[in-house]
Amino acid sequence: MADQQEFDPQLFDAVDVIRAKRDGGELSDEAIDWVIAAYTRGVVAHEQMSALLMAVLLRGMSRPEVARWTGAMIASGDRLSFADLGRPTADKHSTGGVGDKITLPLAPLVAACGVAVPQLSGRGLGHTGGTLDKLEAVPGWRASLSLDEVRAQLRDVGAVICAATETLAPADKLLYALRDVTATVESVPLIASSIMSKKIAEGTGALVLDVKVGSGAFMKELADALELARTMVDLGTDAGVRTVALVTDMSTPLGLTAGNALEVRESVEVLAGGGPADVVELTVELAREMVGAAGVQGPDPRDVLASGRAMDVWRRMIAAQGGDPDVPLPTAKETEVVRAPSSGVLTRLDAYAVGVAAWRLGAGRARREDPVQAGAGVELHAKPGDEVVEGQPLLTLHTDTPERFPRALAALEGGFEVGAAAAGAAARAVVLERITP
Amino acid sequence: MADQQEFDPQLFDAVDVIRAKRDGGELSDEAIDWVIAAYTRGVVAHEQMSALLMAVLLRGMSRPEVARWTGAMIASGDRLSFADLGRPTADKHSTGGVGDKITLPLAPLVAACGVAVPQLSGRGLGHTGGTLDKLEAVPGWRASLSLDEVRAQLRDVGAVICAATETLAPADKLLYALRDVTATVESVPLIASSIMSKKIAEGTGALVLDVKVGSGAFMKELADALELARTMVDLGTDAGVRTVALVTDMSTPLGLTAGNALEVRESVEVLAGGGPADVVELTVELAREMVGAAGVQGPDPRDVLASGRAMDVWRRMIAAQGGDPDVPLPTAKETEVVRAPSSGVLTRLDAYAVGVAAWRLGAGRARREDPVQAGAGVELHAKPGDEVVEGQPLLTLHTDTPERFPRALAALEGGFEVGAAAAGAAARAVVLERITP
Repeated sequence: MADQQEFDPQLFDAVDVIRAKRDGGELSDEAIDWVIAAYTRGVVAHEQMSALLMAVLLRGMSRPEVARWTGAMIASGDRLSFADLGRPTADKHSTGGVGDKITLPLAPLVAACGVAVPQLSGRGLGHTGGTLDKLEAVPGWRASLSLDEVRAQLRDVGAVICAATETLAPADKLLYALRDVTATVESVPLIASSIMSKKIAEGTGALVLDVKVGSGAFMKELADALELARTMVDLGTDAGVRTVALVTDMSTPLGLTAGNALEVRESVEVLAGGGPADVVELTVELAREMVGAAGVQGPDPRDVLASGRAMDVWRRMIAAQGGDPDVPLPTAKETEVVRAPSSGVLTRLDAYAVGVAAWRLGAGRARREDPVQAGAGVELHAKPGDEVVEGQPLLTLHTDTPERFPRALAALEGGFEVGAAAAGAAARAVVLERITP
Repeated sequence: MADQQEFDPQLFDAVDVIRAKRDGGELSDEAIDWVIAAYTRGVVAHEQMSALLMAVLLRGMSRPEVARWTGAMIASGDRLSFADLGRPTADKHSTGGVGDKITLPLAPLVAACGVAVPQLSGRGLGHTGGTLDKLEAVPGWRASLSLDEVRAQLRDVGAVICAATETLAPADKLLYALRDVTATVESVPLIASSIMSKKIAEGTGALVLDVKVGSGAFMKELADALELARTMVDLGTDAGVRTVALVTDMSTPLGLTAGNALEVRESVEVLAGGGPADVVELTVELAREMVGAAGVQGPDPRDVLASGRAMDVWRRMIAAQGGDPDVPLPTAKETEVVRAPSSGVLTRLDAYAVGVAAWRLGAGRARREDPVQAGAGVELHAKPGDEVVEGQPLLTLHTDTPERFPRALAALEGGFEVGAAAAGAAARAVVLERITP
């Protein structure tokens, strides 16, 4: 790893490294260590790194190359350890989807099962807000903790969801910003190394990946999702993290809400023993994987959820970060209802359309520095497979700024279908594939 | 072309343009015009253009795309015209080789045949100096002329070799510097558009391309050289310039000298009716092509060369730019001789080895701002196919800085072979292929 050696700016020539990958070659460990360290230090220029990233995107990387690339990104910053916690740790990472609030009930549930959950998250820059944006809908809750606070909360509460510190994989932060403007995002090795460098640096002992596939996910095709899942499981395993991936459906939103406060409300319903079936199912499945990967034997997470102990952890987790779990959540000032155009069965409710609508209503951000609206989003009154009656509410749109309604409604055009009941209209299974080391 | 429209920075998103080429698509005329104009104006960042260049290198460009790309680079600056000169014009461009001084005798020869030669050149950044570096070995000669001076000299002398103005294809200047540091030089569409944008913008009516192939050339393989030649002939033809290409051998140096003043001396020998056979042959062949492409009927260039009229033009051309053709050329302070290790036939004398040796002796530059030594270089005393006797001088190395000898000698190690006479040892033909529209 690069951090075990002095950095030598002259060790390689950036042009030689780019040329080697451009021509389909495999980069040496030393070349990878050097180019990541040199880029982080400004020795390799942005225009050189972007040419290399495009070559990587088009030529690919071998398993050893991706592992080394990931290791070099980890070595660009700190690598945490919770080995002294006296309790196993497990984290979950989702590649992101519409209505994906699973982390909120999941982290307290896994903690209630005896496994500490150190989730250090980034900010969302997609259809809807990220996990931190959702939790910030809780009045008083704060995302920024010091490392000492993280350790204390893991010890006392068992679960922490907070903003990742700047010192975790800083090379990834630079690379991510560069990829965003150079059309070099859509590369399995680059996506996998970006996610896994942060998760491995975070110091979790076990990791469960939720790789989403479908219209509302980054990966639209199952084959791509499987490749990404396999690459990440390999990376985690090679780095000594017990890693499992579930490939899950994102053709329709998860649960019945997409939006920050709306999703917190739904998460609390799940913790209270209610909530939509798909959210409960995926929460329990992921909890089983995390507890299993952490090597803990105990009662089934479904029973722990029913016992109310996960709700207790949730309340303490929120309170530990300044939030008040009893204060009502913010609601949007204005709503607008979308009704069923005919009677029949809801055969399709497209995740991407709902995601864009929620984003346009103010739930997500266009630029990193934009604020999000806590109350904005989309509420679903039916899911694919449900029977609906002409004129009944299908969706309720929420926003503080009603001038956003027309563009949100436009996003929903063609995004749902009501038809005769058909075999294909039944709700899809949530978990599609399971990838193990 | 971009210059006929207002530039709209919002017309495209750079990321969309990069993504389209990355995914193997064909860029629209409008996208190409926009991206070149936007890059020239700083709207598209260096890191975005380098990602696009890498995608172009790996995905290629169609004939219409290369033509439009070239047109957009021309449109980034001025396009000259010599239509009012009352005489046809022709220029030559060589892709560069070791000992390639052909422009020096060629321009006066073609002018003596009644065709004006407006050669606006760039600076060399290779094994040896470029044409301007060679001519600057002539005391007093200056490369920078105003456009009025160019026109006057073309009218009065018939030939001008000078530095290209900053206003010719400025986009190419930016792109060239970027390609150099991002390993995106070796792309036929990018090489062809770079060369042709400058030559078309220069305003020549006819153009003859000398595409070199072999160890001392940029193109090592005949197939690549043929592809480059064909692409450039198509580009010139499509832009209304009568264009022909000769693909010529660069496995061994041209003539008996590589270095600035050394090559001027050899060029003057050719103009005086002597000089090495290969230099004379290529000069006459290229002159025939240029005169033919310009549509001029007249005596054969070989006869014009023998008549001394080309030498007259040379003397006036040098004098018009402040040089004194009668002042002795500079010579290097130190020399070192490389001798034949055995008797036999010189079966190989590698152009690349000689080129690197000349460069290390001071004839070329490592960085754009470096000076060159006028007297430095390599003199050959035998060519492949010649019989040599053990201990006879094979090469003389020239430099003002004798500490350079060891690294120059190292470059020559393995660069030549003396063996028994063999069929393959005969000198190769200089002109290998001729490409016409």
